Amino acid sequence: METKITVLEKPKLNSPILIEGLPGIGNVGRVAAGYLIDQTKAVKFAELHSSHFLPFVLVHDSAEIALLKNEFYYLKGRKGGRDLIILIGDAQSLDQVGHYEIAEKILDFVEGLGCKEIYTLGGLGTGQLETPKQKVFGAVSSQKLKKKLESYGIDFSVSSKIGTIVGASGLLIGLGKLRGMDGVCLMGETAGFPIVTDPKSAESVLKVLMKILGMNLDLKALDQRVKEMETFINRIEGLQRKAIEEMTKGTQKEAKEDLRYIG
Amino acid sequence: METKITVLEKPKLNSPILIEGLPGIGNVGRVAAGYLIDQTKAVKFAELHSSHFLPFVLVHDSAEIALLKNEFYYLKGRKGGRDLIILIGDAQSLDQVGHYEIAEKILDFVEGLGCKEIYTLGGLGTGQLETPKQKVFGAVSSQKLKKKLESYGIDFSVSSKIGTIVGASGLLIGLGKLRGMDGVCLMGETAGFPIVTDPKSAESVLKVLMKILGMNLDLKALDQRVKEMETFINRIEGLQRKAIEEMTKGTQKEAKEDLRYIG
Amino acid sequence: METKITVLEKPKLNSPILIEGLPGIGNVGRVAAGYLIDQTKAVKFAELHSSHFLPFVLVHDSAEIALLKNEFYYLKGRKGGRDLIILIGDAQSLDQVGHYEIAEKILDFVEGLGCKEIYTLGGLGTGQLETPKQKVFGAVSSQKLKKKLESYGIDFSVSSKIGTIVGASGLLIGLGKLRGMDGVCLMGETAGFPIVTDPKSAESVLKVLMKILGMNLDLKALDQRVKEMETFINRIEGLQRKAIEEMTKGTQKEAKEDLRYIG
Amino acid sequence: METKITVLEKPKLNSPILIEGLPGIGNVGRVAAGYLIDQTKAVKFAELHSSHFLPFVLVHDSAEIALLKNEFYYLKGRKGGRDLIILIGDAQSLDQVGHYEIAEKILDFVEGLGCKEIYTLGGLGTGQLETPKQKVFGAVSSQKLKKKLESYGIDFSVSSKIGTIVGASGLLIGLGKLRGMDGVCLMGETAGFPIVTDPKSAESVLKVLMKILGMNLDLKALDQRVKEMETFINRIEGLQRKAIEEMTKGTQKEAKEDLRYIG
Repeated sequence: METKITVLEKPKLNSPILIEGLPGIGNVGRVAAGYLIDQTKAVKFAELHSSHFLPFVLVHDSAEIALLKNEFYYLKGRKGGRDLIILIGDAQSLDQVGHYEIAEKILDFVEGLGCKEIYTLGGLGTGQLETPKQKVFGAVSSQKLKKKLESYGIDFSVSSKIGTIVGASGLLIGLGKLRGMDGVCLMGETAGFPIVTDPKSAESVLKVLMKILGMNLDLKALDQRVKEMETFINRIEGLQRKAIEEMTKGTQKEAKEDLRYIG
Repeated sequence: METKITVLEKPKLNSPILIEGLPGIGNVGRVAAGYLIDQTKAVKFAELHSSHFLPFVLVHDSAEIALLKNEFYYLKGRKGGRDLIILIGDAQSLDQVGHYEIAEKILDFVEGLGCKEIYTLGGLGTGQLETPKQKVFGAVSSQKLKKKLESYGIDFSVSSKIGTIVGASGLLIGLGKLRGMDGVCLMGETAGFPIVTDPKSAESVLKVLMKILGMNLDLKALDQRVKEMETFINRIEGLQRKAIEEMTKGTQKEAKEDLRYIG
Repeated sequence: METKITVLEKPKLNSPILIEGLPGIGNVGRVAAGYLIDQTKAVKFAELHSSHFLPFVLVHDSAEIALLKNEFYYLKGRKGGRDLIILIGDAQSLDQVGHYEIAEKILDFVEGLGCKEIYTLGGLGTGQLETPKQKVFGAVSSQKLKKKLESYGIDFSVSSKIGTIVGASGLLIGLGKLRGMDGVCLMGETAGFPIVTDPKSAESVLKVLMKILGMNLDLKALDQRVKEMETFINRIEGLQRKAIEEMTKGTQKEAKEDLRYIG
Repeated sequence: METKITVLEKPKLNSPILIEGLPGIGNVGRVAAGYLIDQTKAVKFAELHSSHFLPFVLVHDSAEIALLKNEFYYLKGRKGGRDLIILIGDAQSLDQVGHYEIAEKILDFVEGLGCKEIYTLGGLGTGQLETPKQKVFGAVSSQKLKKKLESYGIDFSVSSKIGTIVGASGLLIGLGKLRGMDGVCLMGETAGFPIVTDPKSAESVLKVLMKILGMNLDLKALDQRVKEMETFINRIEGLQRKAIEEMTKGTQKEAKEDLRYIG
């Protein structure tokens, strides 16, 4: 299959903005996007599956089996606000070819829905356990956008901290730019190491995003919601680690028998 | 070639059920499916080959060379019973893209034969050498199926033991669900580590499966049959390990010469 | 490009036999096939290139650059003998998908020239430095062939020594069998570890092959010729090892800086 | 997307010569080509992107996001001189299939612009920190070319130093040769280990190249320019290393939990 999007409903959206929150450092983007969906009761309308994800299925508490997936939700804008497409999911690609392929599929899909603007959400790992302030860093597809966003308290000195953005959060903006789409990556400061879900960082990112979009969002339930999500997220991550080890174990094991080989 | 199915005979099957038993932990699925084929004299009608399998051939005792393969057998239902397609084989994919590709090919093929229901057989590794009871765990594509199977003594608390099902046993059900197919994964409790073929676990799985399908199967010969199969299975596994090491050895060897490189 | 065959001349061949001698353990096949080409003045008529080979070019003593390649030679049969296609080369695929793809391309090509019979030449590594006799082992695509070859002193108890044949020597026969082609793999006993070119083993294999084909070949110059080839072969192998290390070094290096990452 | 070239301007070029300087040992080629572009004010007219590059974007000091890319510049020949196409970039492929694919795309593109001659620039790592002379080594697609270049002080005894040319510098010439294109690889002697940008080596290569092309280039600003580029280049390289580690870390981490697996 490679990468395939299954559409459940075809919403009519008014120049929607894509908000991406896939798994990553501190799970900042995923938690932020997940909470946004929960609180706004955004409607799921499409699923993405890919043969570049890990080759396994998840088993939920109900004993139900589910493929790894990315999910698209839409949210109709209130009071003249813009429509949103929110992208969350369990997984990113295992290999470089898949990373680019999946990002292109997502862009094809949302462009077809009239989307010309992208916000990707993520964490910026400082490597330090103590984070004095909950800064939000930003990177953009153009200088014009940076100017537009200057009043929102975003720190654009990101290149002094990091120099690359790995995976969907970076590629969606880089590849979108080639298509003339505007893109902003918002990154919440987070310890980053060890990998722990960071609700405080997600809250900071959501606050900035809501201000930019002119939306209100009750953030009181975030801590509680993150605790619930954390169990699930940690389980998936632990399982992915175990599965990867299991899959690679066979090839690393030392054979005691003589080695024989024919070419 | 990527993945190709060679059809030897085109059987007419009456809404057949797919039973999958490919290599995996404790070889539970493979032994169970292999014994089912032996005892029922199911008829082989197709072979699957893939460039995502290890790049070698097997040499049998007769000095005959054979590609790694998956094999499809059919069994016409007796006394009004349903027809079965039984899938066994020597190998699963080496990479994630192949895992998804092969599962999709299998689903395309059996869907074309009228199949809408899948049982995959496997082992659930407890990591403990002592297994007090021969429990059979289950995971399903929908709650409806779980209800239907509640009376067969299957333990559906599988998510507290494991959270993922790796390879064909999981993907066939996950990808099948996208096509509207019903799927059940039956997993026999087994030590799982170290990797040893576990006939007792295979027997438990077969008992549950036979009850669900309303079939009788004489399980007396299983122990003996497993001993015969074990030699073959262990040889293949040992050889795969050796081959993988041989193939990766060159790249890990430390070169003593100076390193020179031009970019 | 993936895998591409460039044809230099279109020979008319009379149901030719394919003889394969690509790099492998002890370089038995490569040395045997290379010597056969040299002594018979077989004519090169096609080259195969593949993006599954290592991504580098060779630099010869003349400072000339050459892509890694496999080469096809033909030899018109003398005194009613059969025509031969001889396949030699510098490289095999780096990954499983390429191994199968290249073998299929080769089979497509030689089938188009009327070939229905394949002999692949290789080494069987015993893992012991002392090899008492220069045995030649065989594996076949069918029992009929084994019978036909029984009088040539080939040892068919190969499955007690090894259980798999890795790469082109195995896949050409396994995949050829699916197309109804006859295939034999002749393997000269060799130490196999450490990897050293083994002219004695190549000689044994050539002797058996010449008997089967009803050909005469002066083997006196083999030792000298192998010494010449060995320098070249060892250089390529050393370079491949160094290049692989160089290519993988970057990814293994420990970074001392803090790790920062955004998802 | 795999590999895609985006054309910004369609220049009319008079049998142009391709000059390649992508990242590699000592960054000799990249520095030489970059300086040539700067000093001659060559005009950028196309970009190449590939899903075989690392799956991340760069963040510049301006907070602007950029995909990894290769860039094509043209320079109209002065005083009857030949037109040039200069290829520089941030990245080469991560895998063998991509290396070949990207080289073929580049050749398709420049062939379409009338190019039949290629100079690739790189470093030849001696493995020794002290380099007595700034030698320039050469490798060629044919003996005819070697003769033509004999008067330029190029050392063609390259096979005694190295035996392979890895990546674009080698493949462009090897694959170009298959299309009947002439190719020369000029390699500046450099320590090569540890990986440090070597402006002296780049200067030597540029001097030889300018002599061959009959061009003048003021090399005074090279040292200063290299210092500026070095910061940027080192940052990208450091980031690539960190990103690769981050991406592979998950798979190498030892899990302390029990391993459970279902096949």
